Amino acid sequence: MKILIVGATGTIGKAAADLLSKNHEIIRAGFREGDYRVDLGSKASIEGLFKSVGTVDAVVSTAGTAGFAPFAELDDDGYDLALSNKLMGQVNLVRLGRDHVSDGGSFTLTAGVLSRQPMLGSVAVSMANGALESFVRAAALELDRGLRVNVVSPVFVKETMELMGMDSSSGVSAADTAKAYRAAVEGDSSGATLDVPEYL
Amino acid sequence: MKILIVGATGTIGKAAADLLSKNHEIIRAGFREGDYRVDLGSKASIEGLFKSVGTVDAVVSTAGTAGFAPFAELDDDGYDLALSNKLMGQVNLVRLGRDHVSDGGSFTLTAGVLSRQPMLGSVAVSMANGALESFVRAAALELDRGLRVNVVSPVFVKETMELMGMDSSSGVSAADTAKAYRAAVEGDSSGATLDVPEYL
Repeated sequence: MKILIVGATGTIGKAAADLLSKNHEIIRAGFREGDYRVDLGSKASIEGLFKSVGTVDAVVSTAGTAGFAPFAELDDDGYDLALSNKLMGQVNLVRLGRDHVSDGGSFTLTAGVLSRQPMLGSVAVSMANGALESFVRAAALELDRGLRVNVVSPVFVKETMELMGMDSSSGVSAADTAKAYRAAVEGDSSGATLDVPEYL
Repeated sequence: MKILIVGATGTIGKAAADLLSKNHEIIRAGFREGDYRVDLGSKASIEGLFKSVGTVDAVVSTAGTAGFAPFAELDDDGYDLALSNKLMGQVNLVRLGRDHVSDGGSFTLTAGVLSRQPMLGSVAVSMANGALESFVRAAALELDRGLRVNVVSPVFVKETMELMGMDSSSGVSAADTAKAYRAAVEGDSSGATLDVPEYL
């Protein structure tokens, strides 16, 4: 398969690219580097990406920005970033990419465990993640040509926790997290939320 | 208790007001009628509502607009309406209302079964509903003064189905739907999604 990975230069994206590259051709897109550059906050940038890349068999997104802040301090910009970038940026990958994926191809997006197991400061991230789970469930009903759409729900990634000086014992490595993306791309599910701990 | 119901002139809101009025004082707010007028799409309007109403013991929202459209035809305005009105309108009720609710008081919002059981054309509604479920889970962790926040997840309401010329046999009446709102207001849960069929 020819697989476009958006966010391929991030911690999870790099691991997903490494794992999937064993059996597939990978095209890497990133905000700052990669074979192609894309800004998920811009529909024009996403349109430009698909125009440049052409047709692929799968699109994997490990991208999308949303910030942490105490609920009492979370301002309009904080909500906007989560909803316009992590949520609508990934939704727009599906909206704008559906004509650039071959019959039977797939989209795999990224949400996260905070939708169902929130933590202090995660309000905006939790909302975006919860919306993404419902998005794939609903959109899967309406995709044609056998197209599939799923979302991977990672837990905290060990490498990220270590970078942040956190105890990483409860985390899952990026390489292990990547296995859920492989399951989404190579499997036949659609409308599903793939919880990373179930694919270790 | 003194309970502010936003959306009190709608089908569910009217039934919730009727049921809760047996034991509580009800203040009705609506977009077009009611004791007070409010536009959930406007933060200024929500701020004005709370300034006029003063302090209450509970806020119930049965309001918020989001539209149905085939995924292939759902445009930016359709996503914006669901995210800015049904989702952020209700989130803003909590953000702007938290200083107007007495200690131990509660917020009860409205999502819906389409977050987990979508139907054709429900993409935007499903997303808003899923985000609301995650929002209350996350926000509940951070509310102080014993404040609670929950969301009711109605199934299709019989009266609405009949108005739309649908077979209403799978629906739940507005009066029965109201029971979940009473459970949220009078109970002690927080961060919960109250599925209407569990409160009949």
